Amino acid sequence: MVTRYYTASSIDGFIADPDNSLSWLLTRDVDPAGPMSVDALLAETGALAMGRTTYEWILDNPQDDGAAWLYQQPAWVFTHHDLPRVDGDVRFTQEPVEVVHAQMIAAAGGRDLWVVGGGDLAGQFADAGLLDEVWVQYAPVALGGGAPLLPRRLELELLDVARNRDFVCSRHRVVRAQR
Amino acid sequence: MVTRYYTASSIDGFIADPDNSLSWLLTRDVDPAGPMSVDALLAETGALAMGRTTYEWILDNPQDDGAAWLYQQPAWVFTHHDLPRVDGDVRFTQEPVEVVHAQMIAAAGGRDLWVVGGGDLAGQFADAGLLDEVWVQYAPVALGGGAPLLPRRLELELLDVARNRDFVCSRHRVVRAQR
Repeated sequence: MVTRYYTASSIDGFIADPDNSLSWLLTRDVDPAGPMSVDALLAETGALAMGRTTYEWILDNPQDDGAAWLYQQPAWVFTHHDLPRVDGDVRFTQEPVEVVHAQMIAAAGGRDLWVVGGGDLAGQFADAGLLDEVWVQYAPVALGGGAPLLPRRLELELLDVARNRDFVCSRHRVVRAQR
Repeated sequence: MVTRYYTASSIDGFIADPDNSLSWLLTRDVDPAGPMSVDALLAETGALAMGRTTYEWILDNPQDDGAAWLYQQPAWVFTHHDLPRVDGDVRFTQEPVEVVHAQMIAAAGGRDLWVVGGGDLAGQFADAGLLDEVWVQYAPVALGGGAPLLPRRLELELLDVARNRDFVCSRHRVVRAQR
């Protein structure tokens, strides 16, 4: 069972632009059956975690079929705010990541955990020694500013590199400090 | 003849850490005969451009054989400061990038131009419509802060992806606005 942070990014390490938009991302070409696609990821994923901004972005950007929520898996949303509910298994939480991580494992049925974003939430999982992998899909654009990919100093080991149409796809293992 | 920005970066888009160190980079494994290596780049390069910080970093970090300067090609250093000279073809300049770019072409003998760094100098070449390619080699580390890779909004097209040992290697073309 692996806990992974999987995200798209600009080549200069931003996961949203300064207007908190993903317009620079959603216009790109990707093969859903290609390497490191989100479809492949979801097939391996048993539970999701995300921050408030990520959750609100999903709600503000419904799917082509009008559906507000994309995921079958249980999702924990870290927030101190009252947020709108969706038709899906969404669990708002103010617990520390360690507590939520245990709840996610219990719900995931042996499948992997996906930290959807943002970068600081992924960093909190890393701080707690609970992050195993970082997967980044670089879109062909520099943004020059925005929401940071991973605001931590974190040692990694490169596992795999691939191209999926417009994207540079990379997969890293988190190198944990000896305890 | 291509003008390219070629640089190493952390996965989160920093080309130097907050202490202006490259210790996170120089410990990594790379195959000099592998894809997108600096050796291959230099074989194609006829002239170099860099900012003051990059130049000072090179001077502060001599080679294993004690040599202060690595390059055979003429190098332009953009600076408003008095800087130490080295035993090499180094030309300090305060001219705009357009003027220096023409000088570089004249000196390069038909070979390519390499913008070594930093990110803002590469951005100035892009602002002037003079940057053709961006090559980034991602080292397996997140830094969480430091000198930005490319502080601009810049549309790109992915040309190539490769792995060179510890590095994710990518090559992009700059998509210029229609004029």
